[in-house]
Amino acid sequence: MSGLGEFEYIRSKLAPLTDGAPGAAGLRDDGAIVELGPGEQLAVTADTLIEGRHFLKGEDPAIATRRALRTNLSDLAAMGAKPFGYTASIVWPKDDYEARATGFVEGLKADQDIFGIRLIGGDTTSANAPWTLSIAAFGRIPTGQSLRRGRAQAGDLLAVTGTLGDAGLGLDHLTGDWPTQNQAYIEFVLQRFRLPQPRIAVGLAARGGANAAIDISDGLLSEAHHLARESGLQAQIDLEAMPLSAAASGWLAEQADPTAARLDLATRGDDYELLFAVPEDTSDLLVTRCKRFGVPLTFIGRLTDNGLSGALQVLSEGKRLKPSRLGFTQF
Amino acid sequence: MSGLGEFEYIRSKLAPLTDGAPGAAGLRDDGAIVELGPGEQLAVTADTLIEGRHFLKGEDPAIATRRALRTNLSDLAAMGAKPFGYTASIVWPKDDYEARATGFVEGLKADQDIFGIRLIGGDTTSANAPWTLSIAAFGRIPTGQSLRRGRAQAGDLLAVTGTLGDAGLGLDHLTGDWPTQNQAYIEFVLQRFRLPQPRIAVGLAARGGANAAIDISDGLLSEAHHLARESGLQAQIDLEAMPLSAAASGWLAEQADPTAARLDLATRGDDYELLFAVPEDTSDLLVTRCKRFGVPLTFIGRLTDNGLSGALQVLSEGKRLKPSRLGFTQF
Repeated sequence: MSGLGEFEYIRSKLAPLTDGAPGAAGLRDDGAIVELGPGEQLAVTADTLIEGRHFLKGEDPAIATRRALRTNLSDLAAMGAKPFGYTASIVWPKDDYEARATGFVEGLKADQDIFGIRLIGGDTTSANAPWTLSIAAFGRIPTGQSLRRGRAQAGDLLAVTGTLGDAGLGLDHLTGDWPTQNQAYIEFVLQRFRLPQPRIAVGLAARGGANAAIDISDGLLSEAHHLARESGLQAQIDLEAMPLSAAASGWLAEQADPTAARLDLATRGDDYELLFAVPEDTSDLLVTRCKRFGVPLTFIGRLTDNGLSGALQVLSEGKRLKPSRLGFTQF
Repeated sequence: MSGLGEFEYIRSKLAPLTDGAPGAAGLRDDGAIVELGPGEQLAVTADTLIEGRHFLKGEDPAIATRRALRTNLSDLAAMGAKPFGYTASIVWPKDDYEARATGFVEGLKADQDIFGIRLIGGDTTSANAPWTLSIAAFGRIPTGQSLRRGRAQAGDLLAVTGTLGDAGLGLDHLTGDWPTQNQAYIEFVLQRFRLPQPRIAVGLAARGGANAAIDISDGLLSEAHHLARESGLQAQIDLEAMPLSAAASGWLAEQADPTAARLDLATRGDDYELLFAVPEDTSDLLVTRCKRFGVPLTFIGRLTDNGLSGALQVLSEGKRLKPSRLGFTQF
């Protein structure tokens, strides 16, 4: 390691990121103190990103950092929590320390301002290991109002925010699997892959409007399966209803088998949109609320109760498909 | 990866570790919900252990797991917090997955019962990386009663729990630097290195009895320096007063320069004892409380206010030493 020592890096670069979070004691204590208001619960999530596994080797360190933070914020969004803080446990490889350490702080700074969150703790180590960013993120929820996966009701509509499949196409482009020349497509899907947008405002707005929520990190079909199973229900997904960006539509038009291609988009990970189970009578309200935040909400199916917990029906032009896989697993 | 898939491992092996923590939703949700009672604050700490760096390659996976958990619990102890839960973000190397995955669950189970804590979240990934255990641990503290580093007062006595230097000698034995034949010494110092005892009961008992506390992960002198600096005071340490185990005393008797040897013990890490700043008028009370938990408390110095914030005076037989280093830094 060159440049600043560990203590000096923490003192001069990381400690200022705790400004506004007095319980973090400027990272100079054994841990942080967090207070909740009366009638508040704490939401906790933890997620690790590893270079070469969850983001490509050579990715801009500030972007990789923000991606690590945002995958955690997406989980809080799916709980209907308002994020306020996070801990960061970082393993630095021996090489390129300066660029990573600088980019790390820049990335955190940028997203702290955007999301109103503060660093409250963590630790750093150098090791013969890939760059590893292990984040735990914290949010507040009014007691009893959290969105959970398992509270969907039979008859609920399935709705997704934004568009799906873009991040997977971004990865395809980076790895050479989608050699498109369309610069607008490329810019869009790369942005979607590298810097997901946690749907926090929508998650907050969905409290009281949705019965259940989950974030789409591992593909629509996989997440719909989880949500249905945890609620003891069956999910029906209409593949043609899946919201696609211009880029994904462009990709789709190039594919020989449009049904197989749509199925592919429905199993790609990393979009970090939200999937909601919405009672029919609050569905208009939720659309209106999402529109307020500039986020399209699209209805793509329904939950039913036929006794088959977690079963998934994927329909294309009214016919049932049998997908060979539901999504991307990290393992 | 062989054996159970990721989802099945989480469902059948990790999810049962959340029993008794309903907010963890059996690890089937985006995150956990934590509730605090009225008048309670949350204590949060995060610490990562890496195979080959914080524990030796080939260490029993259950022991390595408990060590990772306990280094975090030690931070909570130093805050006077009562631990209740933790998240675990694990990076599995490609080799020896079965042994590590099994030992990991065994280790967590053992310490969950001992410390009354529950798994509430986290994630697992496999990668070309050393085994990495990133833990965030959570405790409860009555509002305003947390022990912090920076609240010591001039005139406070410095007191340490247990004995110091043992873990460092355990590491020395493992690496061949202390080839003693004394089996009792070996057993003791290995245990001290491999499986630290977070001083939770003592930390709780010190609320109201100590002004400040810090856990001794990086050596007595280093931690005394931190505590003094954060409190704007100077620390005086009497090296001969430092509490030594029979094993450390045995090691000391073998050394040519006893003062240099004591100084060495005072800069060794990994003991995870607590260092307190105690007002003279509550010192007897704290000794009595520690005795109740079978933990010796030894007074080893004093905090003074001479305007030199963070300065450290190390005395040996009344003479001032100039230590060349204060402790072990992780970086």
